[in-house]
Amino acid sequence: MSQSAPTHNSTVDDLVRDLVERRIRMHQIPSDLSAEEAAEVRRRALEEQASVSLDHMRRYSFDVDVASSRNCENLIGVAQVPIGIVGPVPVRGDTVEDEVYVPLATTEGALIASTNRGCAALRAAGGARVYVEDVGMTRAPVFRTSGIDESRRFVAWIEEHEDEIRDLARATSRFLELVSIRPFVFSTTVFVRFRFQSGDAMGMNMATIACDRIVTNLIEPSTGVHCTALSGNYCVDKKPAAVNFQEGRGKRLFAEVEIPAEVLSRTLKTNPADLVEVQYRKNLLGSIAAGSSGFNAHFANVLAGFFIATGQDLAHVVDGSTGVTFVEERPNGAAYFSVFLPTVPLGAIGGGTGLATQSEALKLLGVAVDPDRPGQAVMRLAEILAATVLAGELSLMAAFTSRDLASAHERLGRGPADATEG
Amino acid sequence: MSQSAPTHNSTVDDLVRDLVERRIRMHQIPSDLSAEEAAEVRRRALEEQASVSLDHMRRYSFDVDVASSRNCENLIGVAQVPIGIVGPVPVRGDTVEDEVYVPLATTEGALIASTNRGCAALRAAGGARVYVEDVGMTRAPVFRTSGIDESRRFVAWIEEHEDEIRDLARATSRFLELVSIRPFVFSTTVFVRFRFQSGDAMGMNMATIACDRIVTNLIEPSTGVHCTALSGNYCVDKKPAAVNFQEGRGKRLFAEVEIPAEVLSRTLKTNPADLVEVQYRKNLLGSIAAGSSGFNAHFANVLAGFFIATGQDLAHVVDGSTGVTFVEERPNGAAYFSVFLPTVPLGAIGGGTGLATQSEALKLLGVAVDPDRPGQAVMRLAEILAATVLAGELSLMAAFTSRDLASAHERLGRGPADATEG
Amino acid sequence: MSQSAPTHNSTVDDLVRDLVERRIRMHQIPSDLSAEEAAEVRRRALEEQASVSLDHMRRYSFDVDVASSRNCENLIGVAQVPIGIVGPVPVRGDTVEDEVYVPLATTEGALIASTNRGCAALRAAGGARVYVEDVGMTRAPVFRTSGIDESRRFVAWIEEHEDEIRDLARATSRFLELVSIRPFVFSTTVFVRFRFQSGDAMGMNMATIACDRIVTNLIEPSTGVHCTALSGNYCVDKKPAAVNFQEGRGKRLFAEVEIPAEVLSRTLKTNPADLVEVQYRKNLLGSIAAGSSGFNAHFANVLAGFFIATGQDLAHVVDGSTGVTFVEERPNGAAYFSVFLPTVPLGAIGGGTGLATQSEALKLLGVAVDPDRPGQAVMRLAEILAATVLAGELSLMAAFTSRDLASAHERLGRGPADATEG
Amino acid sequence: MSQSAPTHNSTVDDLVRDLVERRIRMHQIPSDLSAEEAAEVRRRALEEQASVSLDHMRRYSFDVDVASSRNCENLIGVAQVPIGIVGPVPVRGDTVEDEVYVPLATTEGALIASTNRGCAALRAAGGARVYVEDVGMTRAPVFRTSGIDESRRFVAWIEEHEDEIRDLARATSRFLELVSIRPFVFSTTVFVRFRFQSGDAMGMNMATIACDRIVTNLIEPSTGVHCTALSGNYCVDKKPAAVNFQEGRGKRLFAEVEIPAEVLSRTLKTNPADLVEVQYRKNLLGSIAAGSSGFNAHFANVLAGFFIATGQDLAHVVDGSTGVTFVEERPNGAAYFSVFLPTVPLGAIGGGTGLATQSEALKLLGVAVDPDRPGQAVMRLAEILAATVLAGELSLMAAFTSRDLASAHERLGRGPADATEG
Repeated sequence: MSQSAPTHNSTVDDLVRDLVERRIRMHQIPSDLSAEEAAEVRRRALEEQASVSLDHMRRYSFDVDVASSRNCENLIGVAQVPIGIVGPVPVRGDTVEDEVYVPLATTEGALIASTNRGCAALRAAGGARVYVEDVGMTRAPVFRTSGIDESRRFVAWIEEHEDEIRDLARATSRFLELVSIRPFVFSTTVFVRFRFQSGDAMGMNMATIACDRIVTNLIEPSTGVHCTALSGNYCVDKKPAAVNFQEGRGKRLFAEVEIPAEVLSRTLKTNPADLVEVQYRKNLLGSIAAGSSGFNAHFANVLAGFFIATGQDLAHVVDGSTGVTFVEERPNGAAYFSVFLPTVPLGAIGGGTGLATQSEALKLLGVAVDPDRPGQAVMRLAEILAATVLAGELSLMAAFTSRDLASAHERLGRGPADATEG
Repeated sequence: MSQSAPTHNSTVDDLVRDLVERRIRMHQIPSDLSAEEAAEVRRRALEEQASVSLDHMRRYSFDVDVASSRNCENLIGVAQVPIGIVGPVPVRGDTVEDEVYVPLATTEGALIASTNRGCAALRAAGGARVYVEDVGMTRAPVFRTSGIDESRRFVAWIEEHEDEIRDLARATSRFLELVSIRPFVFSTTVFVRFRFQSGDAMGMNMATIACDRIVTNLIEPSTGVHCTALSGNYCVDKKPAAVNFQEGRGKRLFAEVEIPAEVLSRTLKTNPADLVEVQYRKNLLGSIAAGSSGFNAHFANVLAGFFIATGQDLAHVVDGSTGVTFVEERPNGAAYFSVFLPTVPLGAIGGGTGLATQSEALKLLGVAVDPDRPGQAVMRLAEILAATVLAGELSLMAAFTSRDLASAHERLGRGPADATEG
Repeated sequence: MSQSAPTHNSTVDDLVRDLVERRIRMHQIPSDLSAEEAAEVRRRALEEQASVSLDHMRRYSFDVDVASSRNCENLIGVAQVPIGIVGPVPVRGDTVEDEVYVPLATTEGALIASTNRGCAALRAAGGARVYVEDVGMTRAPVFRTSGIDESRRFVAWIEEHEDEIRDLARATSRFLELVSIRPFVFSTTVFVRFRFQSGDAMGMNMATIACDRIVTNLIEPSTGVHCTALSGNYCVDKKPAAVNFQEGRGKRLFAEVEIPAEVLSRTLKTNPADLVEVQYRKNLLGSIAAGSSGFNAHFANVLAGFFIATGQDLAHVVDGSTGVTFVEERPNGAAYFSVFLPTVPLGAIGGGTGLATQSEALKLLGVAVDPDRPGQAVMRLAEILAATVLAGELSLMAAFTSRDLASAHERLGRGPADATEG
Repeated sequence: MSQSAPTHNSTVDDLVRDLVERRIRMHQIPSDLSAEEAAEVRRRALEEQASVSLDHMRRYSFDVDVASSRNCENLIGVAQVPIGIVGPVPVRGDTVEDEVYVPLATTEGALIASTNRGCAALRAAGGARVYVEDVGMTRAPVFRTSGIDESRRFVAWIEEHEDEIRDLARATSRFLELVSIRPFVFSTTVFVRFRFQSGDAMGMNMATIACDRIVTNLIEPSTGVHCTALSGNYCVDKKPAAVNFQEGRGKRLFAEVEIPAEVLSRTLKTNPADLVEVQYRKNLLGSIAAGSSGFNAHFANVLAGFFIATGQDLAHVVDGSTGVTFVEERPNGAAYFSVFLPTVPLGAIGGGTGLATQSEALKLLGVAVDPDRPGQAVMRLAEILAATVLAGELSLMAAFTSRDLASAHERLGRGPADATEG
């Protein structure tokens, strides 16, 4: 081969060919290619194989090196989800005392318009009072013993070694702090639910790494008890669960507002009695009838939009959207309206938060991690989320009372009503 | 140009100023501006107000006119979520008999790599047998009566008028067909759960519009019974619920594979006994201990990635990820592995499916709506999803048995293991 | 009497000795002894062994032959549970239009007094409107298949052979009629929930016998599919369960009353607003907070008392007490009050209904089985039960509003208040 | 009045007449009559009114003065429930190390025989290892605040005054000791779950009286926050609930046994693989499919029989029967079998425990309250119950594997099999 080594381009072409003809797999692109090139090779192979164009998937502006190493293996491009803006959301919390514009990423018409109407009502009512508890992130390995006696001894051992366990956790990250240990015994099966503070990070990865160290380096060798799985579903992650409702996981959110009669009728086209009626027959009785653990109208919609826009783990919408809405009549034709979300995993750093648009969204929200004040950034994020969920819930509930739901669907989101729920 | 109308550019600048100084609201951009211009006005106002740059949010390639009218009001830009590719996924269903590359949009390292390993195991095992039932989309308005007698008469009236109701539903869309009506009585509260086939659409908007017509034009005037809310949470949408588990909603998915001993040990580094053990102590006992209704390891992760990539309603991850995993030892060291997802809302048209990258993803999957064969496209989509969930679940369960979970976290997704769960 | 056969008395003594010295077991009393004698032998052996007197257990008046063969093996005597009377309960149903005295067996002071106060309120309010649906008794064998394909074929086979199955069921009892079959597939596990009408019997034994015949004689030989257990917990018996809530099992009960202002204040020392408040914060929010599936104050108390008095299967209090209470304010200071119990197993014949005191209780209630009108007797029983639960619930809820609960405890049931709940 | 005062007999006759003609009510029998006479008056009135004989209800031997003042108002007689004996049950616990005969009161044929077979297997296997935790009795008043801020202050106040609360509780009973306080906030609704040790008493009445004192004398006057109901259903009593499962209430029971191959085949006609199979498809998958929170075969049957015989509150079968069964294959053809009941209310004094036959049953079990060792008697009772539930569960599970269930029904309980479940 006199002609010298193949040019880079011919390598790309060759690799595309290799992929199409299945001589190599998607994850076997040689590592001397840049992430950008590797993505292009995969895209072109897919385009050729499936006779499609992936031109739009090409149009990303995030740092592909970072994204492909931290967020997404076998990267081929981007999913573009439209972002709309709601607000300003008037937030009155321990961290935030401000009006904030909130970006929501969604593909479902009417969600933005409806939430925006809720924000108008909140502003007219003097703002959303919010309150967030940093409950901590949990991870619960599961262990197998020979019987109840060994389970008892094992639990006793764990409780006696809490200090050692705490030290081991700290050694894996300076932002990780063991808060508590909760064992739960099922005869020969022992779940040990570790709870950690994790600063501004959502914390699941940190918790998993710490648990691995604790289990592998300390618990198993010391006790001889085998760990069946590092996550024993008593954590519990990305599934609705009573233990999370009872004890919380991540952040526990409250938001409330008292809406004067005039705002109810003018902005929301409703009144307290009708809101209470929808709350009673839909959110309470309807969910009881359905055997549902969600006693709200549509927390999941706002949460999903917020999670995508701000780089949260999207599967956390499952547990994060758990919760209850409360409505009460108040004197002078006012209505008290409140939401409770007991188990919202949330991070201001890590995961998808560093990606290009997600990072912009966090900046827009004024969320900036300060290593000297760990946890402050994520608390701001949580307070804003709580107020935004309140706005969305309020508006949809009001829409039901005035039967705006379906007409909004037909108008494809043009207007103040609601379509996507719920 | 004295006194003339402002040039277009000056209008944009003026509007930005108006927004920043709150003389107008985000949804009050004059309608003579193009959607593109309106988005720019909003973005610039936000940039100025919050002193941030939203340059990356600007980098969308979808049709902003369509997106802002159908998917997202107050549009300001795009959330860019990385897409990785897994597969090919070997799907053996009634609709698909093929190997398919599947795009997943995610920000959580290791999900793609892990699912990909599951795909390798499925291929080596002869493919995933999948089976999908089109259960239909439901919507359940809630009504208020004066007491049990009126509730009984009301239910009897509904049942007697099923034909009229069916005709009304058809009149709202030629793709909508009433399947069944299920009333549920709580003394003075009556839920009426309408179930529809909706062709290739996910169907919730169509169902809502039909219900509005049925309630407003027929049921209320004929019976005099008041509808409290068009959605009574007995539907039930975007919340985990027993009624959906029992009766299904959207698509009901099954997938299974029998994995030979050699594939288990070589590709998955595991064995049947360990898989059964993880299934027993984590997926079954762990979820029982947690009071969870999700008896699986991480359906939600794959579902979320698939939903974002293909333009599904993201909040549907909440109900869609409900389900159970099954593992059994089989002769000769093989393992039977199966997943069941009883209630997955899914569409091949409508919602976010027509957006630029989402549309490419559907084409890549070979999902093409054919008006003459309504429902075929979405069944293909469902079968592919079922197989992909199987791949993801299988790989993570295997990772637990070989304790790969945490090390994958630390390696940030470089490798065959699992990090994001579950 | 040299060498003669032992007298009867000496046999009894000998057997007592044999038992005490463990030469024989409790169930090995020779069958030539009468049931009465066998019971005496066991009692005396226990008395001797444990140095206790069982004189009170001796004081039964039921037919010991029948009881020991049908209700209770190894019979040693009687548990005496006090019966109090409440009422008359004013019942306005499809079967009963009468005032009925209702016996409740209980050991918990205040339950009778409180329920009685509820009866007084019901009478003053014009009676309890009740409505009962005979939903049918279910039994669900569980089968094991090799995979989804076999499960599908198996379900199809079952559905095609419904007529044969119905005939087989009829052949086991002329009072048993198959109503419906509901299969539920978990990949390799198939539950088949058979639903039967069973006349005046509670029906579980009849259903089990019929299922055994259907499975052993028809399904297994015809399909080759193995039945793992004749009851697969999808029945579901004596456990709280969503499937029973959704679909009903046994009888589905409703009862309601509108209570005028004057009755509320005079008889119940309460008012509509306070009742609604207790309903909202205790029965609805409290049960939601607790993750409970019982949205009532104390259905279980009345049900237990009724079940013991009338010879029902006592473990059925578990599923039977599931349900929801509803309260609404009505014009002129009245309150609407209603209870819903979706899944109450109940029989007027069989089980313990034929025992001496239980039979008297049924006669006192006017419940008489007429073979020519099967199901009439049990419907009467169900209607009376529904009204009695309403009375008990109403009174306790009112007691909460006037803070009578604890004082009643201290007064040990002397008075109109409530102690045993709930 | 020449004719002299009416004799006592004529008074009885007169009162009967007054009752029949409704001049007085059942609870208005003059208090100068003895409890015995009052019961006779009521009985005779009922007999006359309903033209029935209540001769069997007359045959009680308990102390009617005590019963009518403590256990049952408007007393008219007795419900006679047959008691059978099972055992001896070999119990190996911290309190009991003995073989104990256990009386169960039941009307359902086969329960005794089946449980007895389980006892035989336990004896042959070396006995049941049991372990009981005295978790404490809970009561949770519910309070109403004006909003989240007041809720936070209220909770802080409660936590700061734990010592005062503890002192108040002690003042109501020397056997009552506050263990912990757990608040749960739903915006304007605050549940405060008090947990108490209550010696040998089940403790609910003591807890209620203490809570009344704490709320009325301390919390309400000090905080100005209104208590809506002394029981806020977050207690939670006589309803299945996640909070009880997670945190326990009353006693938490464990029992286990390893059964050798020979005992499995000879006594139970089964083998480990079949037991595991029934556990998997029935107790786990079946309950998951049913949406049930009971993952066992029939805890409720044994519990109900035990509760009636020993004078427990019968409605407590609802929460008490919650729980999970575990089965594992062990080396050499043995099977590990275990039961877990997390929330069993139980008392050795108070309630119905002092009644005639119930007191005999407790003595037979060797349960004797010693004021100097409070809690010892009830722990013995709990350990025996745990072992008996294990015996019953084991036998029924084995019966499924050999398909004995229905034949036992037909033989009406004559034999080793099972009929009443489950």
